[in-house]
Amino acid sequence: MMHPSSERRQNAIDIFQSGLQAVAPGAAILRFCQLNGDIFSVDGTDYDLRRFENIVVLGAGKAAAAMARAVEDLLGGRISAGVITVKYGHLEELKIIKIQEAGHPVPDQNGFIGAQAIYQLASSADEKTLVICLISGGGSALMPLPVDGVTLEDKQETTKVLLACGATIHEINTIRKHLSFIKGGGLAKAVYPATLITLILSDVVGDDLDSIASGPCVPDSRTFADCRLILRKYAIETEIPSSVVRHIDSGIAGKVPETPGTGQVFFEKTQNVVVGSNFNALLRAKEKADLLGYNTLLISSMLEGETRDVAANHIAIAREIQLHGLPLQRPACLLSGGETTVRIRGTGKGGRNQEFVLAAAIKMSGMNDVLILSAGTDGNDGPTDAAGAIADHSTLERAVALGLDPSRYLDNNDSYNFFDKLGDLYKTGPTNTNVMDLRIVLVG
Amino acid sequence: MMHPSSERRQNAIDIFQSGLQAVAPGAAILRFCQLNGDIFSVDGTDYDLRRFENIVVLGAGKAAAAMARAVEDLLGGRISAGVITVKYGHLEELKIIKIQEAGHPVPDQNGFIGAQAIYQLASSADEKTLVICLISGGGSALMPLPVDGVTLEDKQETTKVLLACGATIHEINTIRKHLSFIKGGGLAKAVYPATLITLILSDVVGDDLDSIASGPCVPDSRTFADCRLILRKYAIETEIPSSVVRHIDSGIAGKVPETPGTGQVFFEKTQNVVVGSNFNALLRAKEKADLLGYNTLLISSMLEGETRDVAANHIAIAREIQLHGLPLQRPACLLSGGETTVRIRGTGKGGRNQEFVLAAAIKMSGMNDVLILSAGTDGNDGPTDAAGAIADHSTLERAVALGLDPSRYLDNNDSYNFFDKLGDLYKTGPTNTNVMDLRIVLVG
Repeated sequence: MMHPSSERRQNAIDIFQSGLQAVAPGAAILRFCQLNGDIFSVDGTDYDLRRFENIVVLGAGKAAAAMARAVEDLLGGRISAGVITVKYGHLEELKIIKIQEAGHPVPDQNGFIGAQAIYQLASSADEKTLVICLISGGGSALMPLPVDGVTLEDKQETTKVLLACGATIHEINTIRKHLSFIKGGGLAKAVYPATLITLILSDVVGDDLDSIASGPCVPDSRTFADCRLILRKYAIETEIPSSVVRHIDSGIAGKVPETPGTGQVFFEKTQNVVVGSNFNALLRAKEKADLLGYNTLLISSMLEGETRDVAANHIAIAREIQLHGLPLQRPACLLSGGETTVRIRGTGKGGRNQEFVLAAAIKMSGMNDVLILSAGTDGNDGPTDAAGAIADHSTLERAVALGLDPSRYLDNNDSYNFFDKLGDLYKTGPTNTNVMDLRIVLVG
Repeated sequence: MMHPSSERRQNAIDIFQSGLQAVAPGAAILRFCQLNGDIFSVDGTDYDLRRFENIVVLGAGKAAAAMARAVEDLLGGRISAGVITVKYGHLEELKIIKIQEAGHPVPDQNGFIGAQAIYQLASSADEKTLVICLISGGGSALMPLPVDGVTLEDKQETTKVLLACGATIHEINTIRKHLSFIKGGGLAKAVYPATLITLILSDVVGDDLDSIASGPCVPDSRTFADCRLILRKYAIETEIPSSVVRHIDSGIAGKVPETPGTGQVFFEKTQNVVVGSNFNALLRAKEKADLLGYNTLLISSMLEGETRDVAANHIAIAREIQLHGLPLQRPACLLSGGETTVRIRGTGKGGRNQEFVLAAAIKMSGMNDVLILSAGTDGNDGPTDAAGAIADHSTLERAVALGLDPSRYLDNNDSYNFFDKLGDLYKTGPTNTNVMDLRIVLVG
C-alpha cells in the first residue's frame, strides 16, 4: 500500500540525502583540501610538499575509513605511511594506510593495540614530516591509550563512577583527558615537531574542537588540580580506582606531565579544520528543500535537550505555520540538527530520532499535511539498524487500525517496534559519516 | 550603574510592552466589537440591539474587570445588569456591572457566592436577553459552583488525587466539568434561551475553547462514562471523595443530567470569539521589533515543555545566528510564546519566565551581544511580584563579581533571588490581561 503522502515522503528523503552528501567524507575533505602540483592547500593555508620527506596519515572514528580513502585519492603515492582505527565491520580497502578494527562505544583491547600503533607512528614523526590526522565521532573510544599505571578497566570504572555521581560531560572529559596519552592534545604533543593538519568531521553540538574525540590535537585548558576539585566536589575519591587517584596526585606533584595547554610549542605547527558538520549538512538540505519549492527555515544545528520537548516544539512551529502562516508560508520545511537526549523510562527498543518522530506524531494529532523525518547521519539510531523514522498525519490513524497505542510505545521507549510495524522505519545502511542528527518537518 | 547594553535592554522592554498593548482587554475587545447605532457587530456578526429587552454582562478571570470596563464603555446605559468575579485586589470602578472578589488559584467561599450570583443572573436570562460573557485566565478557579451533593472541598480533594496519580490535564478537566454547574458548557445551558456572546482572552496554548476557563460556554465532548474510565484507569475510586463517585454513578444512571454536548440546543445562539491571544501579542511585538530595525523571527506562540530545554533551544538559535547568519542575519530578534513547565528540584523562589532567563544566561556563556527577556503577560511570574527577568552576555560576569553561582541558583529554582540581586527582575505591576508568556531574544 502506498503511503498517503508518498510525494511529500520522497521529498523528505531527498532532503535528508542531500544533507548526507554534503558531509560524505570525500566531498567534505575535497571542499577544504586541494592539491595543485606540490602545493597542498588546506582551508586557505598552503603546504609545499617538497619541504617534507614524509607524509603520514593517522586517525580514528566512524568516518575514518572514508576520510582516509579521500586523502589517498588526493595525495596517492606521496603518503609514506598511515594507520587508522575504525569500528568493527567498517573495513575498507586502502592502498597505503593501514586500517584496524576496534570496539565502539566500549573501548577494547584491539582499540588499545591500535592506539599504540597510532601513537608510535605519531611519535616517530620528525620536523620533515607532515602528519594528517583524521578525526570523527567515536574517535575517542576507538583510540584508548591510558597513561602508565592506569588500565583500560580503571578508566572505564572511573567513567562509570563519574556518570553515576552526576558529573557533567565537561567534568568527565577533564578527567579522561588526564588519564590518556592521546586525548587533550596528547596526540599533537606526540607528533611534535612535525607539522600537523587535523581534518575533523564534527559529531559535537557547536563543533567544539576540545570535545570532538576528546580533542587529541588541541590544547587542554584544564589541569590535574581541576581533576582533584571534581573528585572532591562529588566526594568520589574513595570510589574511583586508586591508580587514578595516584596518577592525579602525581600530576599535581609534578611527577607526571600536565596535558599540553594553550600557547605551548606543540601547537605551533598545527591546523585544525572542521571539514564537515551538522551545519554543512543542514545547509545543503536547505538548498534541496528550496529547490523542491519549500519555504525553508533552518532553525539551528545545535538543538539539544529532552527529545519529546524538542519534538513538541517542532510541532508547535508547524502548527503556527498552518494557523497563521508564520514563521513561514506553506509549503514549508523546517530543518534542525544537533543531538537530543532520551530519558529512559521503558524497556523498549529505539533511538533518539525514532523517539523524536513518535513523540511528534502524537503531538500532530488533528493536523493535516505534515510529515516528519528524523534520522542520524551515521545511519544508526541508538542500538538499532534504522537511521530514524518517518511519520505524517496518517500515522496515528494507521497505528490505531493496527491496534497499536502510540502513547504506550512512547512510554516504553519502544519507537523502533512501533515504526517497524507501520513500515515507517527509515533505513540508510552505514553512511560512513557522522555529524549527529537531521530533522525535517514538511508542512503542506 | 548602567547596564552594559541599556539600549538593547530598552528595545526588549519596548517590544514586550507593544505585545502587551495588543492584548490589553479594551483594545482587544474593540478590535472585534463595534457599535453602529443599534447594531452591535461582533467579529462580523451583527446583533440588532432593538431585538433585546435586556443586555446582561457576566464573567470571571484575571482580565474580567478591564474587559467589563471596555464593554461598559462600548454599550454604556444599554447594559441592564452584570456581575463579574476578579481576583482579590483587582477591583475596578464600574458603572453598572457589579464586581466581586474571590480567591485564585485556590477557589474560596467568596468565589462560590460569586458563582451563585453569576449563575442566577445567567438563569434569569430569557429569549429577549443578550448575554455577554467575559472569560479570561483564572475564570475557572474564580467561578466554582459544584453540583448538588459535592462540596468545594470535595472538588479540591478530587483534583489533588488526580494530580498525584498522574492524570493528564484533559482527564482532570473531564472530571472537573462533570462536577460543576458552570464548566463544560454549563453556563451556556443556564443562559439558554438567551442569545450569548462570549468574549475570550486566551491563556491556553493553542487557544482551545474547551480548555479556557474549562469552557463554560462551549460543548463538552466527554461524558460521565469517560469519568468512570479515568477513575478506573488510575484505580483511584476509593481515594476520591465518595460524594464524587456517587455523582458520577448517578450521571451514568441518568439521574443527573450529562454536560451539554455538541449539537445541543444550548449552543444554537452562542458565539465564541477569542479577542486576545498569545499570537496577537507576538504579532504586535514582531511589528515593533521590525520597526526597531531587527530581522525578526516569530518562532511559535505554542511552545511548551521543560523550561530549561526551551531556553537552551532559543540560545541554540541565537548561536546559529551569530555563527552563520541563519535563520536570520543580525541584528536579529527571536520571539516566542506559550507556557513552559518547571520541574521543581529546589526550594527557591521563581517562576517559569525567570527560570527561563537564568537557564538561558548560563547557556549564553561565551557569547556576546545577546539579550533575553521573558515575562508573563499578567505581570505575575509564579508566586513572585516580578513578571519575569532580563539577562544578557554580561549577566554571568556580573553574577560572579557579586559572588553568585548561577548554576546553584538554577538547581535550587531560585531565579527570583538571583535576578533580584543583579537588579534584573522585570516588574510590570498588574497588567489586567493574561495571554501566557512572551520571550524575546535580541542578537546583535
